Amino acid sequence: MDALARALFNPQRIALVGASGDPAKNTARPQRFMRRHGFTGTLLPINPGRREILGEPAWPSLSEAPGPIDHAFVMTPSDTVIDIVRECGRLQVPVATIFSDGFAERGEEGRRLQDQLVAAARAGGVRLVGPNALGVIDTHANSPLTCNAAFETDTLIRGNLGIVSQSGSMLGAVLSRAQARGFGFSRMVSVGNECDLGVGELAAMMVEDPHTEAILLFLETLRDAPVLAQAARRAHAAGKPVIAYKLGRSDIGRELAASHTGAMTGADDVAAAFFRAHGIVRVDTLEGLLEAAQLMVRFPPARRPGDGRRVSVVTTTGGGAATVVDRLGLAGITLAPPTQAVVDDLARQRIHVGHSPLIDLTLAGTKKEIYAAVLEALLGSDHCDAVLAVVGSSAQFHPQLAVEPIVGASPRKPLIAFIAPAADTSLDLLRQGGVPAFRTPESCADAIRAWFDWTAPEGAQGSDGAGVSAAAGVLAACPDGALDERRSSAVFAALGIPPAPGEVLTDPQQACSLDFPVVAKVLSPDVLHKTDAGGVVLRIPDARALREAAAGILERVARAHPDARIEGVLVQRMESGLAEVILGYRHDPQVGAVVIVGAGGTLAEIYRDYAIRCAPVTVAQAAAMIDEVRALALVRGYRGMPPGDVAALAEAIAAFSALARLPGQPVAEAEINPLLVREAGRGVVAVDGLLVRR
Amino acid sequence: MDALARALFNPQRIALVGASGDPAKNTARPQRFMRRHGFTGTLLPINPGRREILGEPAWPSLSEAPGPIDHAFVMTPSDTVIDIVRECGRLQVPVATIFSDGFAERGEEGRRLQDQLVAAARAGGVRLVGPNALGVIDTHANSPLTCNAAFETDTLIRGNLGIVSQSGSMLGAVLSRAQARGFGFSRMVSVGNECDLGVGELAAMMVEDPHTEAILLFLETLRDAPVLAQAARRAHAAGKPVIAYKLGRSDIGRELAASHTGAMTGADDVAAAFFRAHGIVRVDTLEGLLEAAQLMVRFPPARRPGDGRRVSVVTTTGGGAATVVDRLGLAGITLAPPTQAVVDDLARQRIHVGHSPLIDLTLAGTKKEIYAAVLEALLGSDHCDAVLAVVGSSAQFHPQLAVEPIVGASPRKPLIAFIAPAADTSLDLLRQGGVPAFRTPESCADAIRAWFDWTAPEGAQGSDGAGVSAAAGVLAACPDGALDERRSSAVFAALGIPPAPGEVLTDPQQACSLDFPVVAKVLSPDVLHKTDAGGVVLRIPDARALREAAAGILERVARAHPDARIEGVLVQRMESGLAEVILGYRHDPQVGAVVIVGAGGTLAEIYRDYAIRCAPVTVAQAAAMIDEVRALALVRGYRGMPPGDVAALAEAIAAFSALARLPGQPVAEAEINPLLVREAGRGVVAVDGLLVRR
Repeated sequence: MDALARALFNPQRIALVGASGDPAKNTARPQRFMRRHGFTGTLLPINPGRREILGEPAWPSLSEAPGPIDHAFVMTPSDTVIDIVRECGRLQVPVATIFSDGFAERGEEGRRLQDQLVAAARAGGVRLVGPNALGVIDTHANSPLTCNAAFETDTLIRGNLGIVSQSGSMLGAVLSRAQARGFGFSRMVSVGNECDLGVGELAAMMVEDPHTEAILLFLETLRDAPVLAQAARRAHAAGKPVIAYKLGRSDIGRELAASHTGAMTGADDVAAAFFRAHGIVRVDTLEGLLEAAQLMVRFPPARRPGDGRRVSVVTTTGGGAATVVDRLGLAGITLAPPTQAVVDDLARQRIHVGHSPLIDLTLAGTKKEIYAAVLEALLGSDHCDAVLAVVGSSAQFHPQLAVEPIVGASPRKPLIAFIAPAADTSLDLLRQGGVPAFRTPESCADAIRAWFDWTAPEGAQGSDGAGVSAAAGVLAACPDGALDERRSSAVFAALGIPPAPGEVLTDPQQACSLDFPVVAKVLSPDVLHKTDAGGVVLRIPDARALREAAAGILERVARAHPDARIEGVLVQRMESGLAEVILGYRHDPQVGAVVIVGAGGTLAEIYRDYAIRCAPVTVAQAAAMIDEVRALALVRGYRGMPPGDVAALAEAIAAFSALARLPGQPVAEAEINPLLVREAGRGVVAVDGLLVRR
Repeated sequence: MDALARALFNPQRIALVGASGDPAKNTARPQRFMRRHGFTGTLLPINPGRREILGEPAWPSLSEAPGPIDHAFVMTPSDTVIDIVRECGRLQVPVATIFSDGFAERGEEGRRLQDQLVAAARAGGVRLVGPNALGVIDTHANSPLTCNAAFETDTLIRGNLGIVSQSGSMLGAVLSRAQARGFGFSRMVSVGNECDLGVGELAAMMVEDPHTEAILLFLETLRDAPVLAQAARRAHAAGKPVIAYKLGRSDIGRELAASHTGAMTGADDVAAAFFRAHGIVRVDTLEGLLEAAQLMVRFPPARRPGDGRRVSVVTTTGGGAATVVDRLGLAGITLAPPTQAVVDDLARQRIHVGHSPLIDLTLAGTKKEIYAAVLEALLGSDHCDAVLAVVGSSAQFHPQLAVEPIVGASPRKPLIAFIAPAADTSLDLLRQGGVPAFRTPESCADAIRAWFDWTAPEGAQGSDGAGVSAAAGVLAACPDGALDERRSSAVFAALGIPPAPGEVLTDPQQACSLDFPVVAKVLSPDVLHKTDAGGVVLRIPDARALREAAAGILERVARAHPDARIEGVLVQRMESGLAEVILGYRHDPQVGAVVIVGAGGTLAEIYRDYAIRCAPVTVAQAAAMIDEVRALALVRGYRGMPPGDVAALAEAIAAFSALARLPGQPVAEAEINPLLVREAGRGVVAVDGLLVRR
């Protein structure tokens, strides 16, 4: 353990600044909780008015307390905190956890105070947790250094789960929920406003902790995505899953997170892309956050895009199994009925299961040999990717017998248990036996879905270096700021995306060598919405019409944008395809480069039908993105329509996403709209595009 | 209680046919469970080999047992059941519950056996529950007449919830889950194959039961929708909510009809329309099924389409409240921040809450006066439609204090509690205090969403009687079977839906008086897919082109469908609109007439974007349907586009749905595709349609 982690999680001499002698006060809690849960090191309550607090010697100030101090826990009013942190610096206290509130979460004035706090900490070499943080807990070190009321509990169960939470109060809620089921945490941190130590850095410390086997995140926003990304990759390398529950899936949830934390909140789909890119599992239910870890710890991500999503089921209650399977279906996970080989194998053991999609043993399933034989047959067969074992009333009345075949199975693939009745003992036995077991159909389906969606952190390989150099060269030769359509297209073409053939007319009377029909568009870095400005004419049949169109465009645009730099009229061959695709690229302020694939047209916009990933992506990842966009059924071969050139589309997406590989990531945003997808074998063509630099 | 209900739920003399003397056997369970849970009436175990079973006299056959018998519970092999039911008939046993399996659930042969069983029961005047039913329970009558293992429980808690379940084993799961939380059921029935008494009739009996205040349904399908509809309406009249958890949400593959709209409609959508039409609440989570009843019992449906969906929140844990609110946002429920009046009102009480979207009292909220004052202010204000009260750690350590302000509130609108930590005592106290209280954010949001979606059973008013008579007249004058486009349109026009002006050419050379451009289509009751048959030509500019088009159509169709009856070529004015809508009508085999509104085009089909209701619908209901179809944002005034004639569209939907009012409901399916929606004030026009009679 490095020095900082030791000072945070396993401090031996702790100053409790603002400690109260009244045991009913919140500020008395850290001292009470530390002693209640077995801390044997030194606590130094700091309180100018007391010589003794709760039976221990107290000190009027940090400076007067006997040093050295490993960790200061600060509970005084916000206007005193900066001086205290300065004092920490002078005394070489390596870390302070600031419980005090009244900082960035209180608006502009609080944010200024927080900036001063950070400056003071930096100057003094003090690392900070918080402010507005509820505490730092390490159960294995007997160190529940926190004001969270949940630690009032009589016993603190030591466990193998670490958790970092942006909600302090939810730390207590998850603690109580875990302990009510007989399991606990290794380390817990309420990060508060994350003015210094953030989710990422704290998660990284949990990766290094030998007692922590999985890291849970309760998130409202992403404040330090790059650091968290690194931590997640280290966690993956160490075989420790990182599992996130993140608020802000809905607009109102995002608004709430913004007002609650004072932090900026980004789009939820960008966060989802970030989680996926770095191998972070995302669960959707609160119980799932607690219950899924056992599944992820035991079965690391081994999946690739396109792998099967097939579950086989054995149950003693058909209805109980259906409550889970019905939800799995909504997530695109299918039920794999037993194969003939499985049926035959079981028949040889005198177990007749038939071919129904799930194996409902009803009463026969309460015989453990039968249940065990079916389970082994499913686990040993290639026809499914995971096995769900559901137990009915026997789990309630004969827990030992009911769970024995499940605990005794040798799972070569994920084995998940759902218990239909209320049967805490069975759930306990399963957990002790290392089997991921779930209390509600919703959390069970959530965890299984999350496992199927979980992939190892994505690599950064997979794009053409030559194309990137060429694109960088084109970009370097362009003027600053937004690029006009022709220059944007040149960058995309350098990356390997074919543009529609075109010519620039600098005069409406100029001749054009393209075959008709053509389209004509104003060429200007200052006119982003060309159609709105009257700057586009489609289906121009001949040279005369083109001259008219070009003159009209220049006149209308000059009227709409009198100050725009007009570089001419771009004439392009009319192109057509099976479908119009929009490719987008954006440098997101939270997570960095992302690439977006959607279908063209107003409806696709209404349906919010697109796939988003951190950029760059490989061709395989691009293919998975295409599969996610529902409207692109049109190019996948919909109802007898000719299939489109999906391979070329995937190549184009990967090439476009390589904008993220340009040295220094100079592109703020870019868009190809539309990219036309032709029939299979005939490629794609970019018809319009723009690029804006940072 | 009528005689049948008494025989079912409160029998005094029960025959247990096939009862075992081995207490470990399933067939010994009914006797053991009845006696264990206090039944004091007469049990007559029937078993040819025993004179005594579990300490009570046994009888070799029903006929030899001393009569009269109120209820026979049959547990013998399937091939003996029919004779036993015949014997019941002879002995005037009014009802038999058939636990035995091996009937319709086993395929064709079993179905035949079941048909014979029904015939035997009808002949003998015996009503049946099952076969393959796990039992009939009335806790208030001490009558757990069931083989379900869950009744092995030491005590059976009497409650106010009735439940009818199509899964026998889930009856046990919900019993154990409820009892683990300290509440129970009044009546429970496992209906099995529903060969006679179905969910509807049994639910109706629960409406009449004074101990039952809410009726839960665990459904896998709808077998007796009209009877259930009646029961639900009686339940509504009696102030008893009916709450359904139905499987099959993900069963998207089932196509109920060949028509286009039929193909878009899965059975589950139809079930949802049915629930809504008859005032049945649908929950989405298993815990929600158990937990929502208290909300629905206390706050009956008082909502109409377009009513607000605004929740105000008071909490001591911001993160805990956000876990619920974030989910509510996904269901379109908004957060109502406190109004200035509420803020001022509280400020006068020296409580300062600010204007943040939810009122997070943090530690101040653990003072019950403060929490109570905020709660009263929210409940007393018009700015929200429901109030969510969230409690953090105080619920765990000081349950009495924590729940007191919530239990003591006087709710004039729904008041719902969510407890963030594991805190069973608080949940108990809330339940005892009549406050709907939830254990998971998911079930809490599910119940709130279900309440907002809940409306009273829909009335059958709201359509034009004159139009219906006229349509019936047009239909009566048509030949049998499918109608051609012109006759279909005439029916729709009679209902009040304007068709595009048109003329029929019986000869390609015939003149046409319509303004050009026009479209020409083959007119034939035998050609349903006109475009595929080469039977449609669009944008015909002049008379000569029309002659060519008409001749071409007749030639191509004659080739594609040599046997089709061709009635000519229908010429119509080319129409245009802001959006194309598909209206569908179908006589669904389960729930009867339904009407479907969707957007036209391939994408809308891919997105399964439509609204479905039981027909007929009122204009207000039709307007709500329009709001549900996302693609119809195009007519609601999307991004500066001119708004469409939504009022005319709603009128047209209501008029079309009046097909359900035709005497005898003679229409099997009907479709207008497309119905063009013009700009506001300019109406709608039906461009194509078909109608098929039953």
